[in-house]
Amino acid sequence: MEIINIRSDTQTLPSAGMLDAILHAQLGDDTYGEDPTVKEFEKLAAEMVGMEAALLVLSGNMGNLTALMAHGNPGDEVILDPDSHIFYYEVGGLANIAGLMPMPVPSHQGMIDPEELAGKIRKPNLHYPECRLLCLENTHNRSGGRVVPLQLHNELCQVAREHGLAVHLDGARIFNAAAAAGVRASDFTENVDSIQVCLTKGLGCPLGSFVAGSKEFIGKVDRARKRLGGGMRQAGVIAAAGIYALQNNVERLREDHQRARRLAEMINGLPGLSVDMETVESNMVYIDHSESGMSTSELTSRLKESGVIVSTRPPHHIRMCTNLHHDDGTIEEVVDRVKKVLCKEEVLA
Amino acid sequence: MEIINIRSDTQTLPSAGMLDAILHAQLGDDTYGEDPTVKEFEKLAAEMVGMEAALLVLSGNMGNLTALMAHGNPGDEVILDPDSHIFYYEVGGLANIAGLMPMPVPSHQGMIDPEELAGKIRKPNLHYPECRLLCLENTHNRSGGRVVPLQLHNELCQVAREHGLAVHLDGARIFNAAAAAGVRASDFTENVDSIQVCLTKGLGCPLGSFVAGSKEFIGKVDRARKRLGGGMRQAGVIAAAGIYALQNNVERLREDHQRARRLAEMINGLPGLSVDMETVESNMVYIDHSESGMSTSELTSRLKESGVIVSTRPPHHIRMCTNLHHDDGTIEEVVDRVKKVLCKEEVLA
Amino acid sequence: MEIINIRSDTQTLPSAGMLDAILHAQLGDDTYGEDPTVKEFEKLAAEMVGMEAALLVLSGNMGNLTALMAHGNPGDEVILDPDSHIFYYEVGGLANIAGLMPMPVPSHQGMIDPEELAGKIRKPNLHYPECRLLCLENTHNRSGGRVVPLQLHNELCQVAREHGLAVHLDGARIFNAAAAAGVRASDFTENVDSIQVCLTKGLGCPLGSFVAGSKEFIGKVDRARKRLGGGMRQAGVIAAAGIYALQNNVERLREDHQRARRLAEMINGLPGLSVDMETVESNMVYIDHSESGMSTSELTSRLKESGVIVSTRPPHHIRMCTNLHHDDGTIEEVVDRVKKVLCKEEVLA
Amino acid sequence: MEIINIRSDTQTLPSAGMLDAILHAQLGDDTYGEDPTVKEFEKLAAEMVGMEAALLVLSGNMGNLTALMAHGNPGDEVILDPDSHIFYYEVGGLANIAGLMPMPVPSHQGMIDPEELAGKIRKPNLHYPECRLLCLENTHNRSGGRVVPLQLHNELCQVAREHGLAVHLDGARIFNAAAAAGVRASDFTENVDSIQVCLTKGLGCPLGSFVAGSKEFIGKVDRARKRLGGGMRQAGVIAAAGIYALQNNVERLREDHQRARRLAEMINGLPGLSVDMETVESNMVYIDHSESGMSTSELTSRLKESGVIVSTRPPHHIRMCTNLHHDDGTIEEVVDRVKKVLCKEEVLA
Repeated sequence: MEIINIRSDTQTLPSAGMLDAILHAQLGDDTYGEDPTVKEFEKLAAEMVGMEAALLVLSGNMGNLTALMAHGNPGDEVILDPDSHIFYYEVGGLANIAGLMPMPVPSHQGMIDPEELAGKIRKPNLHYPECRLLCLENTHNRSGGRVVPLQLHNELCQVAREHGLAVHLDGARIFNAAAAAGVRASDFTENVDSIQVCLTKGLGCPLGSFVAGSKEFIGKVDRARKRLGGGMRQAGVIAAAGIYALQNNVERLREDHQRARRLAEMINGLPGLSVDMETVESNMVYIDHSESGMSTSELTSRLKESGVIVSTRPPHHIRMCTNLHHDDGTIEEVVDRVKKVLCKEEVLA
Repeated sequence: MEIINIRSDTQTLPSAGMLDAILHAQLGDDTYGEDPTVKEFEKLAAEMVGMEAALLVLSGNMGNLTALMAHGNPGDEVILDPDSHIFYYEVGGLANIAGLMPMPVPSHQGMIDPEELAGKIRKPNLHYPECRLLCLENTHNRSGGRVVPLQLHNELCQVAREHGLAVHLDGARIFNAAAAAGVRASDFTENVDSIQVCLTKGLGCPLGSFVAGSKEFIGKVDRARKRLGGGMRQAGVIAAAGIYALQNNVERLREDHQRARRLAEMINGLPGLSVDMETVESNMVYIDHSESGMSTSELTSRLKESGVIVSTRPPHHIRMCTNLHHDDGTIEEVVDRVKKVLCKEEVLA
Repeated sequence: MEIINIRSDTQTLPSAGMLDAILHAQLGDDTYGEDPTVKEFEKLAAEMVGMEAALLVLSGNMGNLTALMAHGNPGDEVILDPDSHIFYYEVGGLANIAGLMPMPVPSHQGMIDPEELAGKIRKPNLHYPECRLLCLENTHNRSGGRVVPLQLHNELCQVAREHGLAVHLDGARIFNAAAAAGVRASDFTENVDSIQVCLTKGLGCPLGSFVAGSKEFIGKVDRARKRLGGGMRQAGVIAAAGIYALQNNVERLREDHQRARRLAEMINGLPGLSVDMETVESNMVYIDHSESGMSTSELTSRLKESGVIVSTRPPHHIRMCTNLHHDDGTIEEVVDRVKKVLCKEEVLA
Repeated sequence: MEIINIRSDTQTLPSAGMLDAILHAQLGDDTYGEDPTVKEFEKLAAEMVGMEAALLVLSGNMGNLTALMAHGNPGDEVILDPDSHIFYYEVGGLANIAGLMPMPVPSHQGMIDPEELAGKIRKPNLHYPECRLLCLENTHNRSGGRVVPLQLHNELCQVAREHGLAVHLDGARIFNAAAAAGVRASDFTENVDSIQVCLTKGLGCPLGSFVAGSKEFIGKVDRARKRLGGGMRQAGVIAAAGIYALQNNVERLREDHQRARRLAEMINGLPGLSVDMETVESNMVYIDHSESGMSTSELTSRLKESGVIVSTRPPHHIRMCTNLHHDDGTIEEVVDRVKKVLCKEEVLA
């Protein structure tokens, strides 16, 4: 039995084409600005998100952190959703490394309300940190990969602008957002000052993210990266995979979305399982198993025994996330195995 | 016309008795641990809140900040109400000085729900800062000086304990809380690791707060205070006022509360004004003026013209806060002047 | 036997006149900018050092730290003498609070060589923090209160200027420096961006220092002070003493210097003791006891038994520091007691 | 004319064998601890330096920084040579990221004097940061790749131990040090708590370093790495190169040393050039050109025109550094080209 890993889009292995790109990359010491592949990558990356300049960084976390460091200094405040990746999963680096104070504006399934946002921006006062920055996230991970519509996105940027705030977009999966919304990634950057895009999510690279923004801003990100020990030497080995991914793996993201949708439709309504179909907008499917009679860990281990690896969101959900290793057959097979697990459970009950 | 300043309990001037205490204080260089008045103060302060040791600090803000620094290191997380003083009014020092990441647990009018609290404490994970500390606040400033009942307070401490968290109590107005709840201040410290108490709120000192906790903990606070440049020389001039306040101005806080209650009753129901009487538990009165036809700034300046200084909470509230400069006559006079302002407003309308 | 404490100029107690000033100070809540005595103090302080604006702070340490925070951000570098007070005695706050990286330029008895300074200022490079600031100290504490001559001081400022660095002067004892050099304090600030002056050294206040600079700079210092919890309420009790000190205790510093000189002359050459007379420029006398046959701690405790409290600089020096509690008789008496201690020692030997 | 790049050992390109190793590496998501190649690398790395555990990190800078973060917290002090790589080239991250205060102990050509070291360790005092850590560096970069002898190294560790300090060894080039000293790398780690070793210096990898220490310590480094955004996904692409390098490129370092020695001998004594032969202990050759009549930049650009790329140490030195791209012929060719440049210079003069 073949193991099907449908846990995350970060779990992909480089394809033959990507490995070949790595193998033949022209390299140099990027610390001295001499790696041609890195330069080529950064040019392409900036173009693809409609920004002036870009910088390769090791990870999405480092991309967000260096952008935050470039935007503000200790004593400044950043407004963001406490359910955002930056707030929730990045070890509090915004506070303990960048020295920024977060002001939470809770989203509703990934959607921040522009009025609520406006209400959180305080007038300058000696008792408050200085509010400098709004962070947005698209697609929004913790809400299940939901897409913040371009119009809402721009309204939020507008509120920030009116109050003199800069905007950083955690676009780790911005190409997913663009594919799902039927727009270009650059449509989402028109009103932001910086974006982070991850190469290791749906794009299939082993390592790497990039930050994009103005040339001046990217200079600051470069310094921040260096302060974190994030400078690299022959980084072309990462950049080569990045170029390959940007050229070959962006268009195909809509396949991941179609398969996720298909998967959701087939699973929704299976005995004991349900999916809030409205939330399945990109490549993630959150499956509510509260009626299945199994705990999250029980269900997960049954699935594992059947060769299906998923991730969990206790107490009532498991998550499946499609990626470039999956084809239509994978989806069918996953559903079959889920059915068998449910059957067995019924028999046992 | 005499100006009545009923804006805050921080606006008091030292009484003759307090000034006399300052004048006759025995002094020494506290940097060398040689100020006898500071030592006497710290002994008394620790006793009055039922803790092993105490340390004089310059301000409530510094007391909270040094306590946070003593509790955690960069990479740690602190759970607290985003409407707490520490979160809202202390310039983000918890993040930009102490390097802690806040995890917000919104309170309901100052009351944190124990279950919601438990839900915010995450299991250790490499992606999360390490959750170390819960901060409570009593009385709760931004909710209008509300008193967190001892039982709820202890339940929250219990949740923290069960998850291995330390508890810091921002007890800037703990003697108000104790007076209002009819318990001793030390009842509120039984289950906490540290407390900050302010001398410049209702207690009438010009300067100073103290932090109390175990002897070992206070040693760490002392180091943190030094790192902030908070070490002092002949600090007996502050400590002498503190001793006077602890001996003379604690018992009388219930008078402030009675007067605040009286004030609230007399104002509630005046044309266009209302007070949520349930919230008037200590020395603050939040007055809703939404039906008065005046904006917050209009009402405030009218009152100022009539010689009553208040603070504001736009868009619909002004705040009055009783303190030791006020007697029963002050309350009557304030109400009279408010009435006149309202009258004039009607006439004008 | 009366105890003579000649350990430090920080050990003074407020005089009757100063206490009277505190007693009659007009006060207000400085957090709201409403303490008239603080305002008066800050105006006078700024004038006396020839700067546009000043801010009262709790301590010399806090004054230096807030100035550093106002001058730079994490990622910046500050050049200073590793024997300066900021480097040596301020708990590393420049690094752990302000996030600055120190670049040491060792002084020669408090005198930094302009060429050595120039050699330490590196050209911008991604591997280096950005060099922003030079810190000077005058009088120079660890070298024995030596006075950096105005000309050398200005040359060092000039080097900084040429390289685009700001200059902060730790002038905790700037009035001592001015008195000793026969110039005005403001002569030393002509080429610096900020200065910290301490009220608790020779000036005899129980608490307080001030930072002075441009209005804009002092605004930043104010924010930094708030971030440290250094905001104050009725700070007029400190400021009143400060005004008194600036008006009454500055001129008299030359008496301290004359007495220190006298003391040095009388002690230099006593059996087993010597003083490098060249170094006795202000109010400190470092006494080399290496030929006395006593260890530092032995000599110190013998003196203590004789009622003379001194400070130490092991392995071979003790320090005496004159202050406003001493008159000519004090000096005679100290020398007498020292002689007796030496005698006794000989007899015992 | 073929360009000879003899500027640094960081300028190497991955060999065919190394690329092949990358190509065939088994990968997984290291964020979930599932990359088998990373695990294999970390096991091998720990063994080769005689430590319990190791962690792959992106760069030498990140390795040092995460180790510092794991050793201390803000308020702690680290003793190190101001000419060390950590102090000089790592953007002040020890202060602005780790919050540590450096206490400089200047080395003599890379050699710290044990007595001077002992003299810098201060007794605990509220005014000082707490001294926690000594950092050593071997080979010592800024002194020209000099080798700190094992005995001196151990004496320094001993001083640290006696004062309760931990020891971190910046062993970016520890295999060079071991090769030059004729000992094993693990001989240098016997008395240290942590070591950082770089894969991109003489070992020929495109990216990567590792930190080694006790299992518990490496757990802390892992958290620190995550806080910097240094977590990696399919990091096996880096680790595979690392395994290859540890297995194939360590033994051969002595060839680099022999060639450097040869190069130094041949250049020393050329008209206008000299090399302090005592300092040529590993793979670096610092060439003093003060008698050549050329400035550093003149000489460097003449060499560049002749196809020899070197690095500089103005005002009087250029540096050559041998690496695995060089063979005996390269050395001959470099010397020839240098001679020609000198000739031309004479003719021109």
